[in-house]
Amino acid sequence: MCAAVVKADGYGLGLAEVGTALHAAGCTKFFVATIDEGIALRKTIGTSPTVYILDGMMAGDTAGEFASHGLTPVLNSPGDIALWGAHCRGSGDGASRSPDGGTAILALDTGMHRLGLTAAETKDLAGASDRLDGITLDYVMSHLACADDAAHPMNHDQRRRFNELRHDLPSAPASLANSGGIFLGPEFHFDLARPGAALYGISRSTGAPKKMKQVIGLKGKILQVRVVDSESTVGYGATRSVPAGSRLATVAAGYADGYLRSLGNSGHGYAAGVKIPVVGRVSMDLISFDISAVPVDTLSPGDNIEMIGDHQTVDDLADEADTIGYEILTSLGQRYARRYIGGDAP
Amino acid sequence: MCAAVVKADGYGLGLAEVGTALHAAGCTKFFVATIDEGIALRKTIGTSPTVYILDGMMAGDTAGEFASHGLTPVLNSPGDIALWGAHCRGSGDGASRSPDGGTAILALDTGMHRLGLTAAETKDLAGASDRLDGITLDYVMSHLACADDAAHPMNHDQRRRFNELRHDLPSAPASLANSGGIFLGPEFHFDLARPGAALYGISRSTGAPKKMKQVIGLKGKILQVRVVDSESTVGYGATRSVPAGSRLATVAAGYADGYLRSLGNSGHGYAAGVKIPVVGRVSMDLISFDISAVPVDTLSPGDNIEMIGDHQTVDDLADEADTIGYEILTSLGQRYARRYIGGDAP
Repeated sequence: MCAAVVKADGYGLGLAEVGTALHAAGCTKFFVATIDEGIALRKTIGTSPTVYILDGMMAGDTAGEFASHGLTPVLNSPGDIALWGAHCRGSGDGASRSPDGGTAILALDTGMHRLGLTAAETKDLAGASDRLDGITLDYVMSHLACADDAAHPMNHDQRRRFNELRHDLPSAPASLANSGGIFLGPEFHFDLARPGAALYGISRSTGAPKKMKQVIGLKGKILQVRVVDSESTVGYGATRSVPAGSRLATVAAGYADGYLRSLGNSGHGYAAGVKIPVVGRVSMDLISFDISAVPVDTLSPGDNIEMIGDHQTVDDLADEADTIGYEILTSLGQRYARRYIGGDAP
Repeated sequence: MCAAVVKADGYGLGLAEVGTALHAAGCTKFFVATIDEGIALRKTIGTSPTVYILDGMMAGDTAGEFASHGLTPVLNSPGDIALWGAHCRGSGDGASRSPDGGTAILALDTGMHRLGLTAAETKDLAGASDRLDGITLDYVMSHLACADDAAHPMNHDQRRRFNELRHDLPSAPASLANSGGIFLGPEFHFDLARPGAALYGISRSTGAPKKMKQVIGLKGKILQVRVVDSESTVGYGATRSVPAGSRLATVAAGYADGYLRSLGNSGHGYAAGVKIPVVGRVSMDLISFDISAVPVDTLSPGDNIEMIGDHQTVDDLADEADTIGYEILTSLGQRYARRYIGGDAP
């Protein structure tokens, strides 16, 4: 079974739209990072799907808030277990339980050292499993650190450790695989996979054996087309020189729109099917592309440059920015006009 | 005289709040990038301040829209001049003029090669200045490429070129200096300076002779404090190993919140006055700090780590991320709880 990870505003693509589309496609289990994201998602997809909160009971959140919005915490620590357990047994905060009130996921750390019970904490819990009284464990989960690299020894180490730690705990379904974990093979799948990146067209950092279908496009509008009359530098810091006669297109997007500043002098776009380089630094609101290789009079103000699309995937742009597709997506700014196209539309 | 540049959502800090504060402090001229930003700002600061739109008449925007919202375009091209001129002479789109309808800024390119009239276009215009009939030029402006580096020859080149180009045009007040330009000295000030970065506490990339007052702080909340039981790697890709006994704080922020991924294994925060390094990669929603140097039991879940503040400026964090403070600010995400503190408050 698959859940969908829609944290960080649906990986930057819009929690409401992404959540609605996945729910319509039959998804019944969702993961977000924070309780605020969970409350927002709940408003969109109604009361029936399960919404898990990866951050668990972040200090300040209360069990009562989880229960009143029908949200299910991932319990990352002995403290989380104590709070949620007290709530579920009717002895803690928000003691009148919601229908979802009794369930949770228990997270074990197997090598990320980020969230989840340590080996010692897991052993303690196994020896005092009454601390779980009243809690129905939907899953015991852990998270892979190196799933993008199938050959990395951490993968099998983490799987082995996961099985060892689970062994002494009360029996529950298990969940280990993120997108990369899915592609590591069936022994990593357990009872619930949790794809995020793969849902959004990211392939390269998930170890996907073939390219994911691209689900987003990004275009920038040309504000000006300029012809350089003598050899000149372009943009801040005068970092790049172009010869006389060069044609430049100034596009109305910049690092404030998530076109990362690291794409200066390294990114590319496409126009009329021709690959065109970013010249000079990326500005806050503007990018200069050298369109000298595009036939003259093909491009005018108001025309679009393809920044992510058929010619250039999210992964390609991420490589040029020296990052991963995830950061490209979660950085997409709010000034873009966002259009959502139904699954059946072209 | 000074205008305030508040584009890109007030450099990421909130257009409404920043605009209101600057207006209350006496600012009467504002610059934003797009007409949408201008419309939003106008709602906040009322009808009396002047709002300039740097992108000019972006394809698709109409003169009538500018006029009906009382926005003043920066004319970046012969096309912009033709559109706005026709409007101002009552012969174009939206012919019934608003009170602001007749004014504009004329932008000349002196070396950025991004926006503004080229030298040739400026000469053409000087020879046919009836194209400006009906338009009152508030300013003729240009933009400096290397103002952060006082010794860069581009600065005086651009100033000289700016004066040459203006010479043949109808007389109008002039504007050249951004934050960096202000610090280059009085000969760069002309009639209107346009600080952006300096308003928001950025010093390093503006050539400021002394540190700007910090105007923002950024804190991340600790989700978990962990003790590592044996030498282990932290985070995705297992890029960083920490010895047994290391104490780690997992903080609820990540690159989806604009804590750039390039800060992995290079950023720092402060806790209890102690400098603490980011260990491992920055995740989408989580950062791990090594808090081994902070006295035991000082930090608990719910406590804050200082990410920008008294110990560490916007510029410091930008250096660690291999970028500039501007990108740090415009990347700040929407999941942070944002609190605005009045100018008189501590």
